[in-house]
Amino acid sequence: MKNSNNKIFICKGVNSAIALLQSNRFDIINIDILKDSRAGREQRIKDLIKDHFVSYLNKGEFYKKFNEGRTQGIAVEFSGRLTENILPSFKKSSDVCLLALDQIEDPQNFGQIIRTADCAGVDGIIFPQHHSAPITHTVLQVSQGAFVNMPLYQLTNLSQGINELKDNGFWIIGLENSIDSKLWHEVDYSGKTVIVVGSEGRGIRQKTMNNCDFKATIPMRGKTSSLNVSAAVSAILFERQRQLNKD
Amino acid sequence: MKNSNNKIFICKGVNSAIALLQSNRFDIINIDILKDSRAGREQRIKDLIKDHFVSYLNKGEFYKKFNEGRTQGIAVEFSGRLTENILPSFKKSSDVCLLALDQIEDPQNFGQIIRTADCAGVDGIIFPQHHSAPITHTVLQVSQGAFVNMPLYQLTNLSQGINELKDNGFWIIGLENSIDSKLWHEVDYSGKTVIVVGSEGRGIRQKTMNNCDFKATIPMRGKTSSLNVSAAVSAILFERQRQLNKD
Repeated sequence: MKNSNNKIFICKGVNSAIALLQSNRFDIINIDILKDSRAGREQRIKDLIKDHFVSYLNKGEFYKKFNEGRTQGIAVEFSGRLTENILPSFKKSSDVCLLALDQIEDPQNFGQIIRTADCAGVDGIIFPQHHSAPITHTVLQVSQGAFVNMPLYQLTNLSQGINELKDNGFWIIGLENSIDSKLWHEVDYSGKTVIVVGSEGRGIRQKTMNNCDFKATIPMRGKTSSLNVSAAVSAILFERQRQLNKD
Repeated sequence: MKNSNNKIFICKGVNSAIALLQSNRFDIINIDILKDSRAGREQRIKDLIKDHFVSYLNKGEFYKKFNEGRTQGIAVEFSGRLTENILPSFKKSSDVCLLALDQIEDPQNFGQIIRTADCAGVDGIIFPQHHSAPITHTVLQVSQGAFVNMPLYQLTNLSQGINELKDNGFWIIGLENSIDSKLWHEVDYSGKTVIVVGSEGRGIRQKTMNNCDFKATIPMRGKTSSLNVSAAVSAILFERQRQLNKD
């Protein structure tokens, strides 16, 4: 993770490739396109690849190189900074929401959360340097291109980062099933908020929890299961969107 | 899938194993437990395995047999009916919600949706025999034991099934981005409802859509991505829970 900014990443799929090529944040190293594929026929792709090095591969070559994940006939090799280490000031006066991930170690969940956060209008994701899933190809693939536009802040000290945000006027809301938790839809998500979620096994760490102004819980109605963390994130972020729509 | 009721399935993980062993719905063939593992020490497991054939395996043997997926030291082989083919009458007078999956072919999404539906108090999932993900080990694993308690109705003809439910007093709500869709939180989910979701690529098929009384949409706030279908299901099902909590 520390070296992620020198690494070469691969981004697969039509929508992810378009998001990547439209942004000017990354160095595009090579674009592989499968001959006679959806990606090859897609006009938006044709327009975006003009200034780049493009290889058109036949089926045998393409699938030998990219044997897993859904490519839809396109894979873009790129390098660049996927994460920032310093939080900006978030001067925007209207509603700002950051999502804090306290030790989410599963790449599938991490990728899914990036995607959902983008869809739900989140302004950035903050997570600690240690005990977070490294940003692997799986994370990028599952995020479906959302990693391009969602600011990802990887902080040395998550608690300290949350405290700084608190000093900057953010309310901190921890998603935690506790006796003093409010129902998730009874919490006010307007203004500047940080929504903190922990790992499925261990929840939010105590020192992170101590920073929270409110706790929110989503009661389980089933017989056995507990909610996947990315499903919980979706429920809470779209409740925020519902509240903002109402205003 | 047609033969799924004769097949042997494997269910891994402490919570999934407990859910499975507590229910009397399945034939338990064998229980493999890793020596000195969390599962082996867990009292609830000890109580539930008494009447079954149990093998205690050392690390080498256990990981040779179960080389993928998180087992937490337990894997239960079982057989039995995972699905039903006929819808019951749903005489319950209070709020009943069924989730209809129109051609969800990704096992990860299918498993995740079963888990979320259980957590959100859904009464059953209906899906067509063709073009649905078969109930594989991945589906069971991802559902985290929710498959044990969530009724799964696999119908020859989904449209016909939905029509029968309509005749039985269910309102049919399709999650579809269309010009005549209401915002997802402006739809009333009280009473008897069927919530229909389609595959990410193709959406709900026209003949299924024709059965819908209402259409609901979740507007995307991001720059590029669209919501994963299991994240969309979470958003809509917990909006339903919010409305039911309010009544």
